[in-house]
Amino acid sequence: MEPEHYLKKFIEDHIDFPKKGILFKDILPVLREPEIFKKLVLDMCCSEMLKNADAIIAIDARGFIFATAISLQLSKPMIVARKPGKLPGELFTKSYSLEYGNNSLSIQKDSIKNFQKFIIIDDLLATGGTAKCVSKIIKEAKKEVLGLSVVIELGELNAKKNLDFPVISQVIL
Amino acid sequence: MEPEHYLKKFIEDHIDFPKKGILFKDILPVLREPEIFKKLVLDMCCSEMLKNADAIIAIDARGFIFATAISLQLSKPMIVARKPGKLPGELFTKSYSLEYGNNSLSIQKDSIKNFQKFIIIDDLLATGGTAKCVSKIIKEAKKEVLGLSVVIELGELNAKKNLDFPVISQVIL
Repeated sequence: MEPEHYLKKFIEDHIDFPKKGILFKDILPVLREPEIFKKLVLDMCCSEMLKNADAIIAIDARGFIFATAISLQLSKPMIVARKPGKLPGELFTKSYSLEYGNNSLSIQKDSIKNFQKFIIIDDLLATGGTAKCVSKIIKEAKKEVLGLSVVIELGELNAKKNLDFPVISQVIL
Repeated sequence: MEPEHYLKKFIEDHIDFPKKGILFKDILPVLREPEIFKKLVLDMCCSEMLKNADAIIAIDARGFIFATAISLQLSKPMIVARKPGKLPGELFTKSYSLEYGNNSLSIQKDSIKNFQKFIIIDDLLATGGTAKCVSKIIKEAKKEVLGLSVVIELGELNAKKNLDFPVISQVIL
């Protein structure tokens, strides 16, 4: 029998959150264990595709946490993709449909102008709506998405089939 | 003449954002310069009060960035304070009035139960509404706020006078 992944005991299930029928996977308990958090960051930083990226894109808001850690560990510039009304300046904006609702994401035009190849970072891959939204913004700006790196992938949603770039996840639930 | 603070050229002013009459200070450009970002993190980590904290509290959402960096640098557990509807589980919640509007913040009850002394981390101190809100939650849970650490302090708003704990800022604008 394969040993249980070390992250599993730091991921808490919450039934019917944020709405009925959704089983929410809470990654926040890992942040209360700095040594586990550091190991997770080092594991995320191992990927070859990250080394080839000019910059990483953090998805609002839990993506900020893991992207910050990777940015500092690998000395990669960090860009943020944020929800409506949060970013000042000239923006690229796209809407997307989420596992539970609709929303849009924006990136500051200035923030990506000096970079060509990007990796998207988030805590969790569910349907892939947010990552796809970010990749559309990047491609319309004539730039390249090398891949998506997440902590948790919800395997049964099979989001990878809708994404035209590689996905690296630390644990599939 | 005193030399200009090294952070100033990475902080962009945006007039009338997010609403008319507000001069928004955008710290995000610093994230595109990993060496400057690292220096900033090390500077934030110098404070004695941080060393005495059991855990740090990150304020949603830009606070996540600086708190993550400090958590990993100092091996301090990280707790998040989030806006309504974002956190699962049992919560402590308080409302506050902001420089531009009203909102509330929640902290997961489980997240703070094993810690006694906290430092609050955010990107910017404006009126201090969010920090005060977090400190009320912590105090009602019979725990202690040792202080607030921010990157930018808006000096003319003089928020410190409304806070009953010390504030450390890297640059006063």
